[in-house]
Amino acid sequence: MVETFHAPGAERLANAGTRKAYEALIEHAREASLLGGTASLLGWDQETGMPRLAAAHRGKQRAQLARLVHEMRTDARVDGWLATCEADPACTADPTAVAAVNVREIRRDYDRSRKLPTSLVEALARASSAGLEAWKAARACSEFPQFVPALEQILALNRDKAACLGWPADGEPWDALADSYEPGITAREVDRVFGELAPRLVSLVGRIAATGRQPATVDLAAPVEVQRRFVAKVIGHFGFDFDRGRLDISTHPFCSGSHPSDVRLTTRFREEDASDALGSTLHECGHGLYEQGLLEEHNGTPMCSAISLGIHESQSRMWENQVGRSRAFWTWCAPVAGEMLGKGAKAIDPEAAYRAANRVEPSFIRVEADEATYNLHILLRFGLERALIKGDLAAKDLPAAWNERFERSLGLAVPDDARGCLQDIHWAMSLFGYFPTYTLGNLYAAQLYDQAKTELPGLEDDFAHGQFARLRRWLAEKVHAHGKRYGAGELCRRVTGRPVSAGPLLGYLEGKLVPLYGLG
Amino acid sequence: MVETFHAPGAERLANAGTRKAYEALIEHAREASLLGGTASLLGWDQETGMPRLAAAHRGKQRAQLARLVHEMRTDARVDGWLATCEADPACTADPTAVAAVNVREIRRDYDRSRKLPTSLVEALARASSAGLEAWKAARACSEFPQFVPALEQILALNRDKAACLGWPADGEPWDALADSYEPGITAREVDRVFGELAPRLVSLVGRIAATGRQPATVDLAAPVEVQRRFVAKVIGHFGFDFDRGRLDISTHPFCSGSHPSDVRLTTRFREEDASDALGSTLHECGHGLYEQGLLEEHNGTPMCSAISLGIHESQSRMWENQVGRSRAFWTWCAPVAGEMLGKGAKAIDPEAAYRAANRVEPSFIRVEADEATYNLHILLRFGLERALIKGDLAAKDLPAAWNERFERSLGLAVPDDARGCLQDIHWAMSLFGYFPTYTLGNLYAAQLYDQAKTELPGLEDDFAHGQFARLRRWLAEKVHAHGKRYGAGELCRRVTGRPVSAGPLLGYLEGKLVPLYGLG
Repeated sequence: MVETFHAPGAERLANAGTRKAYEALIEHAREASLLGGTASLLGWDQETGMPRLAAAHRGKQRAQLARLVHEMRTDARVDGWLATCEADPACTADPTAVAAVNVREIRRDYDRSRKLPTSLVEALARASSAGLEAWKAARACSEFPQFVPALEQILALNRDKAACLGWPADGEPWDALADSYEPGITAREVDRVFGELAPRLVSLVGRIAATGRQPATVDLAAPVEVQRRFVAKVIGHFGFDFDRGRLDISTHPFCSGSHPSDVRLTTRFREEDASDALGSTLHECGHGLYEQGLLEEHNGTPMCSAISLGIHESQSRMWENQVGRSRAFWTWCAPVAGEMLGKGAKAIDPEAAYRAANRVEPSFIRVEADEATYNLHILLRFGLERALIKGDLAAKDLPAAWNERFERSLGLAVPDDARGCLQDIHWAMSLFGYFPTYTLGNLYAAQLYDQAKTELPGLEDDFAHGQFARLRRWLAEKVHAHGKRYGAGELCRRVTGRPVSAGPLLGYLEGKLVPLYGLG
Repeated sequence: MVETFHAPGAERLANAGTRKAYEALIEHAREASLLGGTASLLGWDQETGMPRLAAAHRGKQRAQLARLVHEMRTDARVDGWLATCEADPACTADPTAVAAVNVREIRRDYDRSRKLPTSLVEALARASSAGLEAWKAARACSEFPQFVPALEQILALNRDKAACLGWPADGEPWDALADSYEPGITAREVDRVFGELAPRLVSLVGRIAATGRQPATVDLAAPVEVQRRFVAKVIGHFGFDFDRGRLDISTHPFCSGSHPSDVRLTTRFREEDASDALGSTLHECGHGLYEQGLLEEHNGTPMCSAISLGIHESQSRMWENQVGRSRAFWTWCAPVAGEMLGKGAKAIDPEAAYRAANRVEPSFIRVEADEATYNLHILLRFGLERALIKGDLAAKDLPAAWNERFERSLGLAVPDDARGCLQDIHWAMSLFGYFPTYTLGNLYAAQLYDQAKTELPGLEDDFAHGQFARLRRWLAEKVHAHGKRYGAGELCRRVTGRPVSAGPLLGYLEGKLVPLYGLG
């Protein structure tokens, strides 16, 4: 008789006590994850279609689920099950085996959750809520001083949070905060990679600006319904499975996944230019392919969870940029766009569309930045948030520091705080240590993509024919299927043979932009 | 200093112990209701847009929430809080006071939930799930015998369920089952009212059929998007608040409400005839106005819950039939329809549209039946399900009994079981005692509407001008605002001065159909 295991990984645990503890642990993790997925559906619904006046009630529903999920994840029985598993070498000897991964990652999550006193969690929630309101008001009138008291409060609580969580002996408080988004990352490591990136990137952007030339724009105007069919067709070619996902509209595009069979992307449309919707849809599709590529058999466990925000972002950036801004992609997509947007199959010149998609020009707002200058926005924020958390920069001095650094790296004088240090929601929501994951995503994307091209000869010829399956399958096999088996840095080394570095991203950007802008 | 009460009704409880117990009771009820609302959103999402392959995962999410809600509702602390409240005359002396209503109804719910052993609840869930599959298969090939074993199992478990719940000394097992849907109803009472209804209704339908005449159809074909704007406009006039609700598409129209600020209607469209979508939208809008008319301050308690399925159905039927099939409604709606459906403002003759909307003709399928013959479908089902539960009719003998009665009351020979006793999902899902609430809804609708016309002179003149606010406000005040303060029968007596009877429905149908079909 074949034994069946409801808990993947249990089949290698010979000791009955270990197995029992492990199975209880996995069942419990699945319950918490199931409820977490329900919470994420409530969030999706709120952004896509909830009636306007239901917001207050929805707030209560979400708070209730957050509380229930937190109670499950910090249930003291988890500690007992973990201790039993950790004491059995069969469960821990091979750190890449399924059971070992699940035990390690559930332990990590449990310990972090238990380290934060409820009073601090609640104080942070209140401060973020107040911070959000203060930020909105301050941004509306571009008056940074209005936001200072709230920001000071948030910073103080984040320093408390870091103290509770702790950081490596050779590290700093920022590391403790960033660890929530990019496990294992340190400011020192970010500094090393960003330090490699900055000079060549600033130089490249400066040389482009100095040409005074920009590619001509291409007419991609079309009604929303037409654009929607167009972007859905493109991501259908990328392999996004509409039987296991949806595409809807929201003010801020996002990807929400509660299970590999239920992955929901959103995008937004501007009638005058489909390239907006295309870019955000390809980006979210990259996130969605990761979520759909996780293995259902591991559902509810760390083996079916994304590694980090940086690796998640690498997937979205690769499909948005390495693929969606490639010449080969536009060879296929230009006639598709021409036909579907009602302009005629030959109306859009592929080379012109490729060039228009790769315009690089410094601007004030991060979320509107091109793929080269975007990273300069992130480098700026990393330096500032690190100093804020350390106490090297006072909240009230943020605008001056922002504006000085912005002009230095992007060559523009910031006209007001709304277009400067008040533009992002992150710090108001108490998210410190988050911004660098965006650029880490770009670095991982470039490095992984280089490897994919090496292993998959003729890859971009596929794109020119609307075929993307080889890349998607490669990513599924190398990245998605492993869940949290490896950390981000380790995954990068295993797949590409090298630690993450700035070289591939710089090589990618220079390789494209030097000829495009005639910088040769 | 003004004391604020989070628990409406607590302000009249002088005893601190009672108040504390009552407040705990209400807070707990609200928690359960909040989670129940989340469960209902999962259901709505599943019917309106969930990706096809997410069904298995969604099943797990819904089962988890059902379990959590059940655990909350049967929490033994509820019994203690209730006992404290019940012992204090300040809480119970006036049975229509807020606290008394909440205590009485939470007690009712608690006792019913606790009477059913978990093993029986689980067995019923399994039998319903298996029943549903067996029913689908049997219906697909119109082979009733395939469904018999599952139906027998469901019947046996429902008899067990009735035995656990108990029934009045002069009653029968069916009463125990129906009490879930229409609290306090008995087969004897249904029999009395349906007995009044049957002869005159059968006669009316027979006389109409004998004329051999039918009103001409009216062209209401239009694309789905156009129809959608049209029906949304009509229910906007009825007072459905789109800031507190939505209208979507599903295979089977329904109304799902998790809070008065979040009420979701669905409908369906046939391009060739907008009257389908109109009818189902007006029907669901009636349910939705009830949900939006419940008072938010009582949210999460019985004072913010509908009385019964029969009263709920009275609201949907009134807007669908008494309003939506009236001559006055079509005086306003015909030009609106003509214009919005792209036919020209004068293309649809109001009188012709009114007549077409009131076609009466016996047919096999209940959900496609007109408002007169519909009740004959229900009477048939009530008689049969009562006999099945009592044991007077064996499952295997259902088709013969169905067909014989069908021909007797509707004058048609049933060609096969798919168009006969296999057409409805209810019994396969273990819903016994449910069908009569549809006709009870029609009876309440007619009786309440008569009263509304008496109290609101010139009411139908409003309709002819597209004004429906007086009726909606009257219903909100007389019905919606009271939640479960009164039982269905008592509400009917209080509002109309008489117990429910067949007279108003018969008067309404004869008053309209006798002249329309020239039966004078």
